[in-house]
Amino acid sequence: MSAIEELVAELAKLPGIGRKTAQRLTFHLLKQPPEAADRLARAISDARARVRACGVCGALTDADPCAICADPRRDATVVCVVEESADVGAIERAGRFRGRYHVLGGRLSPLDGVGPEALRVDALLARLSGTSPVREVIIATNPSMEGEVTATLLQQLLRSTSVRVTRIARGLPMGGDLEYADGVTIAQALLARRDMSEAD
Amino acid sequence: MSAIEELVAELAKLPGIGRKTAQRLTFHLLKQPPEAADRLARAISDARARVRACGVCGALTDADPCAICADPRRDATVVCVVEESADVGAIERAGRFRGRYHVLGGRLSPLDGVGPEALRVDALLARLSGTSPVREVIIATNPSMEGEVTATLLQQLLRSTSVRVTRIARGLPMGGDLEYADGVTIAQALLARRDMSEAD
Repeated sequence: MSAIEELVAELAKLPGIGRKTAQRLTFHLLKQPPEAADRLARAISDARARVRACGVCGALTDADPCAICADPRRDATVVCVVEESADVGAIERAGRFRGRYHVLGGRLSPLDGVGPEALRVDALLARLSGTSPVREVIIATNPSMEGEVTATLLQQLLRSTSVRVTRIARGLPMGGDLEYADGVTIAQALLARRDMSEAD
Repeated sequence: MSAIEELVAELAKLPGIGRKTAQRLTFHLLKQPPEAADRLARAISDARARVRACGVCGALTDADPCAICADPRRDATVVCVVEESADVGAIERAGRFRGRYHVLGGRLSPLDGVGPEALRVDALLARLSGTSPVREVIIATNPSMEGEVTATLLQQLLRSTSVRVTRIARGLPMGGDLEYADGVTIAQALLARRDMSEAD
């Protein structure tokens, strides 16, 4: 295989990158000055070598504990449980959450053989029975079938503890259009309707 | 910047890769075994270090002359002129062309300051006046405004030579739907209509 075909093949292994996109990216990289391609290659190697899971929350980080777990200004009494590290970034960008996180590392998926033992559920329970008290666990698994099942499992496991368990709201996305929303989302939005005086 | 942010930033510089896709790719790479990320990093460095322009046709290659220019079974009397190296791959995949190529390295674009001198036009003329005779030049620049202007320039420059100059056909794409085709394409398809007895 030529060096070009090799690069196309490697890029095409990335999720959402088909053969045509891989070719376009390859020719783009080959037309750039060599430093640009080298910077990308180095960033990939560096990230893979330096990034590991935070020993506390499980998020991918190059400092252990991660910047959020190490930040004394973050409220350690509220823990937001998410499926993946990427979800931490999404919530951080929203800029409204000042607590800590717990990354499960996936979602329950019996069809794919992913049971509770494959997720960082034990680590969550250990965290809740640890020295620093947790008041509330916000379950922010995805609003998908598997995310809901995972949320239900967590709810059951946490029932015996004194911690408050909440679930992020599901409803119509901001900027969305009712006309194009799917039926399940509209049904959820109706079920979860709030009195307008409650809105913040 | 953390190693994660660094990788997201580098990936987001690629064409067609926004910040969200860059993040998705980053987390994908971080979840893979280290070898997978290293293979990609190495493929990028290798390709950039080893790939250069073919001295004959100008296509990106890691052998000079490239495999097509070096192949004695390819018909050297027919030269297909394309804008970019990637176009060579597209025509090769169609599997119907057995001649050689000439890569211009772009298209005329006065607004971007790209004139004939920035393209490999002189190299094409030199090739035509070289020792191996060329019968036909097929102009396969893109069916875009700039591609058409580039084709017209080549046609004018080649008028003084004895070589036959042809242009790839424009028309409705196979598998396309007349109802959804744009007006310019339909107009071209009508203009370029052929007697059905001519069809191969």
